[in-house]
Amino acid sequence: MFKKVLIANRGEIALRVIRACRELGIATVAVHSTADSNALHVRFADESVCIGPPPSKESYLNIPQLLSAAEITRADAIHPGYGFLSENAEFAEVCESCKIRFIGPRPEMLRLMGNKVRARKAALEAGMPLLPGSPHVLKDAREAEVFAKEIGFPVILKAAAGGGGKGMKIVREPSVLAQAFSTAAAEAVASFNNGDLYIERYVEKPRHIEIQIAADEHGNIIHLGERECSVQRRHQKLIEESPSPALTPELRAEMGRVSVEAMRKLRYNNVGTIEYLLDERGQFYFMEMNTRIQVEHPVTELVTGVDLVREQIRMAYGHPLRFKQEDIQMRGAAIECRVNAEDPVTFAPWPGKITGYSVPGGYGVRVDSAAYENYTVLPHYDSLLSKLIVHAEDRPTAIRRMQRALSEYVVEGIRTNIPFHRAALAEESFQEGNYDTRFVERLLASETGTHRLKKAIEETP
Amino acid sequence: MFKKVLIANRGEIALRVIRACRELGIATVAVHSTADSNALHVRFADESVCIGPPPSKESYLNIPQLLSAAEITRADAIHPGYGFLSENAEFAEVCESCKIRFIGPRPEMLRLMGNKVRARKAALEAGMPLLPGSPHVLKDAREAEVFAKEIGFPVILKAAAGGGGKGMKIVREPSVLAQAFSTAAAEAVASFNNGDLYIERYVEKPRHIEIQIAADEHGNIIHLGERECSVQRRHQKLIEESPSPALTPELRAEMGRVSVEAMRKLRYNNVGTIEYLLDERGQFYFMEMNTRIQVEHPVTELVTGVDLVREQIRMAYGHPLRFKQEDIQMRGAAIECRVNAEDPVTFAPWPGKITGYSVPGGYGVRVDSAAYENYTVLPHYDSLLSKLIVHAEDRPTAIRRMQRALSEYVVEGIRTNIPFHRAALAEESFQEGNYDTRFVERLLASETGTHRLKKAIEETP
Repeated sequence: MFKKVLIANRGEIALRVIRACRELGIATVAVHSTADSNALHVRFADESVCIGPPPSKESYLNIPQLLSAAEITRADAIHPGYGFLSENAEFAEVCESCKIRFIGPRPEMLRLMGNKVRARKAALEAGMPLLPGSPHVLKDAREAEVFAKEIGFPVILKAAAGGGGKGMKIVREPSVLAQAFSTAAAEAVASFNNGDLYIERYVEKPRHIEIQIAADEHGNIIHLGERECSVQRRHQKLIEESPSPALTPELRAEMGRVSVEAMRKLRYNNVGTIEYLLDERGQFYFMEMNTRIQVEHPVTELVTGVDLVREQIRMAYGHPLRFKQEDIQMRGAAIECRVNAEDPVTFAPWPGKITGYSVPGGYGVRVDSAAYENYTVLPHYDSLLSKLIVHAEDRPTAIRRMQRALSEYVVEGIRTNIPFHRAALAEESFQEGNYDTRFVERLLASETGTHRLKKAIEETP
Repeated sequence: MFKKVLIANRGEIALRVIRACRELGIATVAVHSTADSNALHVRFADESVCIGPPPSKESYLNIPQLLSAAEITRADAIHPGYGFLSENAEFAEVCESCKIRFIGPRPEMLRLMGNKVRARKAALEAGMPLLPGSPHVLKDAREAEVFAKEIGFPVILKAAAGGGGKGMKIVREPSVLAQAFSTAAAEAVASFNNGDLYIERYVEKPRHIEIQIAADEHGNIIHLGERECSVQRRHQKLIEESPSPALTPELRAEMGRVSVEAMRKLRYNNVGTIEYLLDERGQFYFMEMNTRIQVEHPVTELVTGVDLVREQIRMAYGHPLRFKQEDIQMRGAAIECRVNAEDPVTFAPWPGKITGYSVPGGYGVRVDSAAYENYTVLPHYDSLLSKLIVHAEDRPTAIRRMQRALSEYVVEGIRTNIPFHRAALAEESFQEGNYDTRFVERLLASETGTHRLKKAIEETP
């Protein structure tokens, strides 16, 4: 096994990796910025090295500094966590050229999946379904009509140079397509000085479903079921759960099978996640692949009983997977709430000193937290403070367990999104499992949602 | 379901019950002494009632006060926790006569098992094996010889009026029995002014193994495997685990079967635990039965996935058990360390204010804690501060997980037995699973044990 692992990250994920290493008998090296000297990951690691000041570019993203820290401490592997350099192919290559194992997939996998266009092409060739659409910019409204007939309505016209919803038109029936094309093109010209449009299937109530993959270097590949991540705001996930209330056993098996087969064709290695968009008819479409451990990995750990970070490290060393597909059984239901240091209404980051801190406990409650009493949340970094994860025999019990755990969580001195989570879990659509990626938007726009949020703010200790 | 449950207890078990109630949608009433106003169970319950000053006799053991608190708050059930009035038949009867459900077995069960002599008789009649011994006081050395032959050597002579080891003699062969009888009788006269002796089989390396029972009021009875509780000091358990490293699947099934059959004969209801002594040859002997939820119940919850307190409350209401024997499968290994506010060497209680407090977290770690930063541990009550419980895929991983969790646990301002746990887990005999009820005694008497303890004290934050 590795003798010593350097963790090129901070916050709760650095702790997560340190814990896995300690349980495997591997020594750990923490790296930290000058602002992070008092962080828990520095305290919990066997050794620590200061690698520079904030911002991250000068420390956590500073490849030469990281490598010299690894060389000074004689670490034989680097775990990149998530974010920062975790999907940086160049970093992975430099590690390997220094004979330090990068705990993740081969650099070519990072490179392939890091490029949206190449990733989509590779996904298609490997048999993963893509959202139907025009493979190139549309010549005119007539061509849009041809594609729309092929794709099926509703469709969406999008500005090729687009962003922020400008130049986007949803079209629900053929008769208005030509008119929509003109409007969208005009809007695109006005906004981006570029009228190019393309077309794709419009998914009415999309759900974000992702499949967890584990693959060793000996050709063994399994999936560990799905995570539902539709509770998100501006593509920032807030609540994740496994299993997804939207999947039947048949659909789960199908998504798993397609994912595993594709990974086999691509010769993927280590852990990874394939993100799909699921429509109301149960059709799923490849969105992108994350070639690293994800923030929300704990929900999968709790329902499958597989320690993903442990397996990730073992596989990176060259050990074979210890599980076959038939060993993976999902038991009960798990939910994760990301507890962020932010205003629960505006979602504005809220750094500052935590003057009181007490985490929930008891049966079925897991806390992955980088905070403690008197810890100061820094403005330089991501606002993720901790992850609160519950596991229970079924989804309704898991929801109630999360509600009681949230009610126990004390964070004083700063604002957190705990009240948001309390309001979200109280929504009927969440409780019924009938929600999609516009859930947060609807909650914040509805009278009951905003009322619940206000009440939750009052009730949160 | 019950509408409101009063918890006639304090500390971590009061929190445990409040959590279970909250997850079942039941309102809760905390009771507390004047000294406990700032306790977490008061903060977490929906309502609270002050029931008097310390000592416990004037508050937590004050039956009229408890019942008037229940009546004032219109609680329809009382959960007694463990200790205090949890096995008090009179209390259970008074509750029932006030039309308040006592969450536990019928009063006659408390009465039966609360009397050692009656309990042993009932156990024997119900088919549970007892340690072979003389059923009455021995007339003379000759009678001792007759019994010894029947029982088999080694045997132990015990003073009927005994205690503290006085008047006790272990006899390993027939030739020295007569001499030992005279010595023991003389010692008994000197110590207790009563020379009466009895004899029983002496178990060389006894292990404390207990079987968890759950029985509803509809005749359904199951066992949930065993807990090994041999790490104890003066009959105070310190570390518990499930499964026991000493049990084969066959022996587990046999102990379970005998226990379930006996409970069926006795018409036992609710949760309960049968404590057995296990000898080196795999013979087990009934010691006593605990007619309540036990401190160490979480290890069973983690390996079986059954929420025991939830089931206890449901069954007390009259709901049928939701599990059949074949549904109960033990997965992985769980270990619990009781974290006490006490000196790690002398075991003397160490009340005082906690000036810094941070609990371990991450995968497979459960904390049931009544403490928080600035909480004051009171001298009036039991020194149990929290329970740290881990679950892992196998016993070696569970041990390493507990070691890393203990290393993360910060309790400042008072002394705790965390260093003792660190020393205990490092012992080869514990790691090999080859230990018995004299483990703690041997650890404290050995050079490596005391050295490890000293080192652990230095290393504990």
